[in-house]
Amino acid sequence: MLKLLPLRTLRASTLCTRRTLLLRTYASIPETQKAIVFYKNGGPLKYEDIPVPKPKPNEILVNVKYTGVCHTDLHAWKGDWPLPTKLPLVGGHEGAGIVVAKGSEVKTFEIGDYAGIKWLNSSCMSCEFCIQGAEPNCAQADLSGYTHDGTFQQYATADAIQAAHISKGADLAGVAPILCAGVTVYKALKTADLRPGQWVAISGAGGGLGSLAVQYAKAMGLRVLGIDGGMEKCELATKLGAEEFIDFTQVKDMVKAVQEATNGGPHGVINVSVSPKAMSQSIEYVRTLGKVVLVGLPADAVVHSKVFEHVLKSIQIKGSYVGNRLDTAEALDFFDRGLVKSPIKIVGLSKLQEVYELMEQGKIAGRYVLDTSK
Amino acid sequence: MLKLLPLRTLRASTLCTRRTLLLRTYASIPETQKAIVFYKNGGPLKYEDIPVPKPKPNEILVNVKYTGVCHTDLHAWKGDWPLPTKLPLVGGHEGAGIVVAKGSEVKTFEIGDYAGIKWLNSSCMSCEFCIQGAEPNCAQADLSGYTHDGTFQQYATADAIQAAHISKGADLAGVAPILCAGVTVYKALKTADLRPGQWVAISGAGGGLGSLAVQYAKAMGLRVLGIDGGMEKCELATKLGAEEFIDFTQVKDMVKAVQEATNGGPHGVINVSVSPKAMSQSIEYVRTLGKVVLVGLPADAVVHSKVFEHVLKSIQIKGSYVGNRLDTAEALDFFDRGLVKSPIKIVGLSKLQEVYELMEQGKIAGRYVLDTSK
Amino acid sequence: MLKLLPLRTLRASTLCTRRTLLLRTYASIPETQKAIVFYKNGGPLKYEDIPVPKPKPNEILVNVKYTGVCHTDLHAWKGDWPLPTKLPLVGGHEGAGIVVAKGSEVKTFEIGDYAGIKWLNSSCMSCEFCIQGAEPNCAQADLSGYTHDGTFQQYATADAIQAAHISKGADLAGVAPILCAGVTVYKALKTADLRPGQWVAISGAGGGLGSLAVQYAKAMGLRVLGIDGGMEKCELATKLGAEEFIDFTQVKDMVKAVQEATNGGPHGVINVSVSPKAMSQSIEYVRTLGKVVLVGLPADAVVHSKVFEHVLKSIQIKGSYVGNRLDTAEALDFFDRGLVKSPIKIVGLSKLQEVYELMEQGKIAGRYVLDTSK
Amino acid sequence: MLKLLPLRTLRASTLCTRRTLLLRTYASIPETQKAIVFYKNGGPLKYEDIPVPKPKPNEILVNVKYTGVCHTDLHAWKGDWPLPTKLPLVGGHEGAGIVVAKGSEVKTFEIGDYAGIKWLNSSCMSCEFCIQGAEPNCAQADLSGYTHDGTFQQYATADAIQAAHISKGADLAGVAPILCAGVTVYKALKTADLRPGQWVAISGAGGGLGSLAVQYAKAMGLRVLGIDGGMEKCELATKLGAEEFIDFTQVKDMVKAVQEATNGGPHGVINVSVSPKAMSQSIEYVRTLGKVVLVGLPADAVVHSKVFEHVLKSIQIKGSYVGNRLDTAEALDFFDRGLVKSPIKIVGLSKLQEVYELMEQGKIAGRYVLDTSK
Repeated sequence: MLKLLPLRTLRASTLCTRRTLLLRTYASIPETQKAIVFYKNGGPLKYEDIPVPKPKPNEILVNVKYTGVCHTDLHAWKGDWPLPTKLPLVGGHEGAGIVVAKGSEVKTFEIGDYAGIKWLNSSCMSCEFCIQGAEPNCAQADLSGYTHDGTFQQYATADAIQAAHISKGADLAGVAPILCAGVTVYKALKTADLRPGQWVAISGAGGGLGSLAVQYAKAMGLRVLGIDGGMEKCELATKLGAEEFIDFTQVKDMVKAVQEATNGGPHGVINVSVSPKAMSQSIEYVRTLGKVVLVGLPADAVVHSKVFEHVLKSIQIKGSYVGNRLDTAEALDFFDRGLVKSPIKIVGLSKLQEVYELMEQGKIAGRYVLDTSK
Repeated sequence: MLKLLPLRTLRASTLCTRRTLLLRTYASIPETQKAIVFYKNGGPLKYEDIPVPKPKPNEILVNVKYTGVCHTDLHAWKGDWPLPTKLPLVGGHEGAGIVVAKGSEVKTFEIGDYAGIKWLNSSCMSCEFCIQGAEPNCAQADLSGYTHDGTFQQYATADAIQAAHISKGADLAGVAPILCAGVTVYKALKTADLRPGQWVAISGAGGGLGSLAVQYAKAMGLRVLGIDGGMEKCELATKLGAEEFIDFTQVKDMVKAVQEATNGGPHGVINVSVSPKAMSQSIEYVRTLGKVVLVGLPADAVVHSKVFEHVLKSIQIKGSYVGNRLDTAEALDFFDRGLVKSPIKIVGLSKLQEVYELMEQGKIAGRYVLDTSK
Repeated sequence: MLKLLPLRTLRASTLCTRRTLLLRTYASIPETQKAIVFYKNGGPLKYEDIPVPKPKPNEILVNVKYTGVCHTDLHAWKGDWPLPTKLPLVGGHEGAGIVVAKGSEVKTFEIGDYAGIKWLNSSCMSCEFCIQGAEPNCAQADLSGYTHDGTFQQYATADAIQAAHISKGADLAGVAPILCAGVTVYKALKTADLRPGQWVAISGAGGGLGSLAVQYAKAMGLRVLGIDGGMEKCELATKLGAEEFIDFTQVKDMVKAVQEATNGGPHGVINVSVSPKAMSQSIEYVRTLGKVVLVGLPADAVVHSKVFEHVLKSIQIKGSYVGNRLDTAEALDFFDRGLVKSPIKIVGLSKLQEVYELMEQGKIAGRYVLDTSK
Repeated sequence: MLKLLPLRTLRASTLCTRRTLLLRTYASIPETQKAIVFYKNGGPLKYEDIPVPKPKPNEILVNVKYTGVCHTDLHAWKGDWPLPTKLPLVGGHEGAGIVVAKGSEVKTFEIGDYAGIKWLNSSCMSCEFCIQGAEPNCAQADLSGYTHDGTFQQYATADAIQAAHISKGADLAGVAPILCAGVTVYKALKTADLRPGQWVAISGAGGGLGSLAVQYAKAMGLRVLGIDGGMEKCELATKLGAEEFIDFTQVKDMVKAVQEATNGGPHGVINVSVSPKAMSQSIEYVRTLGKVVLVGLPADAVVHSKVFEHVLKSIQIKGSYVGNRLDTAEALDFFDRGLVKSPIKIVGLSKLQEVYELMEQGKIAGRYVLDTSK
């Protein structure tokens, strides 16, 4: 294991000749590391040795200990989204680890701090979206594991502004899925803009994102209706805090069932499930004045809404993309306080291909987390 | 013409025996009046003498001087909406006039005050929607000209809570369309939730509602892009305050044209036009983080939104129904201050049938207002 | 005890001759009842028989079963507030009971429903404050136990719009203090406008209002710092959900202590305590960007804020008056769900004088509730 | 005058040996420049030659053409605020000019762009305040002309994230005061959180900040009541858009006068004037539910608020500090659109001492702007 030996902090004025001195760094950063790389979309996922990247003046270098695996990583590998990936690419965007080096301008991380690398690696911080805190919407967004080498490697770089601050001593394997899955559902719940005591339906409550959404919703004082298929999902959602649960495999009239369970329809709906039918139903069963939140990124799905009812019920259909720095800090705080916990399964980094296979077969419950040391 | 001779206000404690004394009233309220009545949906519109209604303890009786004619009145007459109308029915819900009598419990109007009768005649004031100010969404809503005899008569009743307070001396013909058309577009603009200096597109800017929307938007400090077809519409919208205008009959790529005119897309869109194509385009051209407002009530239209773009751009599609008491008071205040003006054409009440015919032929620009004395 | 025998509902059209028939009513409403009356401010509190009031067309008549006693009642009796009371007066404004009669226009209560009478008995519903839901700020507000005979009697009237809807079968003694104390602190917490996970300090956490505030705050997902004096208060606040507690009798530097306990200061402060020193300290210890809420109504207290710090920290000092219909419904819903509970002590209505004496001596912990049958 | 000859942009990968090559730069940046420097607080203001600073990797170097002079600059020179300044210091924080060089990591400015240097030179972008957009509240804030050499020199550096983007071709002298005075009052108006059509009182409407506040308020659709002393101030405020004006030197009962002029009191008050008496009055005359905004930074002033009235009227007293990136961009946009204009007087940089003297004598109306070339 890496021994944490911070060098004394060098004054900027003394930084002059050698590249390594431009960084405040550990003595022990290796030259090469293990990573999963692919050279073309859909091509082989190679577990190989590659150079450890150097942080730019505004970046930190994180020794990634654990990284979650997200459906987006599968899309990046396959290359089936409209936006092209960098190639060759190291995927991954849910990495938790320890800061081992930092650029000359970084003042907000110290060597030895815990840090998280998330989907948004950096953004311009100056455009109309960044200046209102909507950094994920920045046209210059640099994306971990997509346009910037990600967390399926032992050492990864991230802009110090966007990197997440993780509490010293946190469980790095447990916190990894919070960095994307957790932040995403938390942001979706904020987007729903509900008051404590109101009903929120989580469509897909028994899955990886859904189970986190149930926990966040409960911690936010909301009443949760879980929607999913099967007894096992029901048990999980209920255990995590769902006050009501509807098994869509058992119910004929979903709209009626949901409205009865919530005394008139939920005030908000988080569509973690991206089934077009489920999303369309959510527009029907949502309460008058209610908010339907879309959060998944299915390639081709379209939602339909009848204008007459949309207006008469004065509902809203809101898209919620990944969270910003504030959402991330808040989502992590709930984790720190023990209020949310992702059900994870840990395997070695070298097993990524097998995880993707399970993912494609829809066989994953909860979240796979990779140990980069194996 | 009615002479306005207010009786002295009677103290509640002296109200005792006769029905007429339960009301604070004019000496000169007649027993019968002129009205347009129909006995079955789509049946003849009869211009006839009917009894003057009596206000209930919580109602005022308004001597309607002028009343606007709205597309909704046509729907009510035809009976082509899902909700059945009262029959026989006196239509109309944009009436401006003078309070001539009031029920025993009414403390907020005096005889001689100017009052407006609007779509929402009364609501329960106690349900979950009423108590948050969303009275139009009340399940017990009583609707003028639909479930409650409306303003196509010389004397009409309205709940004192919902009746609009119009400034003494206001132009009653000019203010009439504000009570529905004005309030509706003003509420839609509030629903768009924009900051002064942001762009709003008004789709259908040259029509009756659209031309009001342009004026309200400008008075709210917004930058207005008008969208409509034809030179005449362009001139009207521009004269009323549109900074940019796009003629959809002249432009090939609407999305591109709108985004160029607004430097990236409008922050909000008010879909006064209910063309499904126009509504769908608005979802495409709206700016990232933007708000698309649906406000019309077409019988069968459906809007479609691509989930991927909806989420990535983090947009909102919001239904906006008619305004509440606050929206009404504010919309009227803009009128009072001379900031908005509806282009109206005045004809006699007895001409309603002809107005409907023009309406069905799509030949009405601006708003027809009926003089109930003719 | 009253036997609840609802008459069949009479159609409005059949209401004609006798006064009693104007009401939908119980057979068994007596002509007279027990009440506590005073004839001049500070004069004797007489436990005597007075007539049962008749509801107006828009009112309900409630058979009050239990009523809380609030500090405001003491002020009303003494007459030491700037606003004069009605005289003679029946005080009380936290009454829970059963609807036994209602006026002709009341559609939102049925005979036999549970109802609550609160501080705001009625308001005009039309002024600029009412139409934005700020009914307690209405200049025409009619106040229970102050300008309208209140709940220290067995039968009291209330405007149907303002009367609270209490769930059938609720514990009427337990719910009584929610109607004023509960709503007031809940509204104050809403005024603080905090996010789940943020810190709120409750200054006066161990008292009647404070202990309710702690419970509401916790149910809203907030982290609670209780502030009060003494071990007993500490134990109560902690048991009810305070995560941290500071005993002001034990701490030298309150500002420092509060900021340390909350890692930089609470995001919001609810000043239930009206000690000027405590209020001033709260302005100092509140977090940058934080909100200080004033909620009590001390006769002469003044808060002081240093402009330089106020601006640099960008804090807010917000006054929060009693809640509106929505706040009331929400506050009651938390009670219904078992999330808040007022520690009460029940004595007979005839003992009011003794309760006032204890109150003046500062000897009341929790809330006294009067049983109107004794 | 400087000739603008941008070098070709160098790729980061070719940046290696010489310091100058680390920058994308002009050929013609001189080694030294003119500046006003002081070596101890209150000491001589020396107009001398000093080295041109080098931008760090995340900074731009701006050739400042014009800079406003703000009261804060006077405080910085005197050193009479609690926070110590850097020494020796070049003051100034309202500088407008042209980007002539930039650090290796700067992607959001190009050489030749127009840029503004404002009070907040940089902040950490990672603390709890920065991540919610409250960057001026950052504990690590680096302040132009206070802790970072400012704009009273020909070449100044600024963090690229915080530097303002000014439209190409803008009037650099005219825009300078927007960067602090304009942004500050615009932010204060946003803090007041008013709706178009509501009344805002500007206390100190005829001064430098006040006259900008009047214009912004008008452009935001607000109704403006100007408050100041004297005929000249009245004329200025009225010309700029104040609908009503109250001359405090002519009025006995300010509270009454303000409430009459605004039909019940303004919905918001911007206290540009820091007179304790004026601020206290604003708490009294503000409308029920209204917002009193404090924006000036007087050394010792304290505001007092009576708790009873504060609660009963449910008012808010809100501190508003300088704006963030979004506020700045918006404030500049109003300027670009010609909706606000600062009355300025231009003198040479070497005349700063004389400007301070006039400032101390209270003899400045509008804003002095320095031409750095003289």
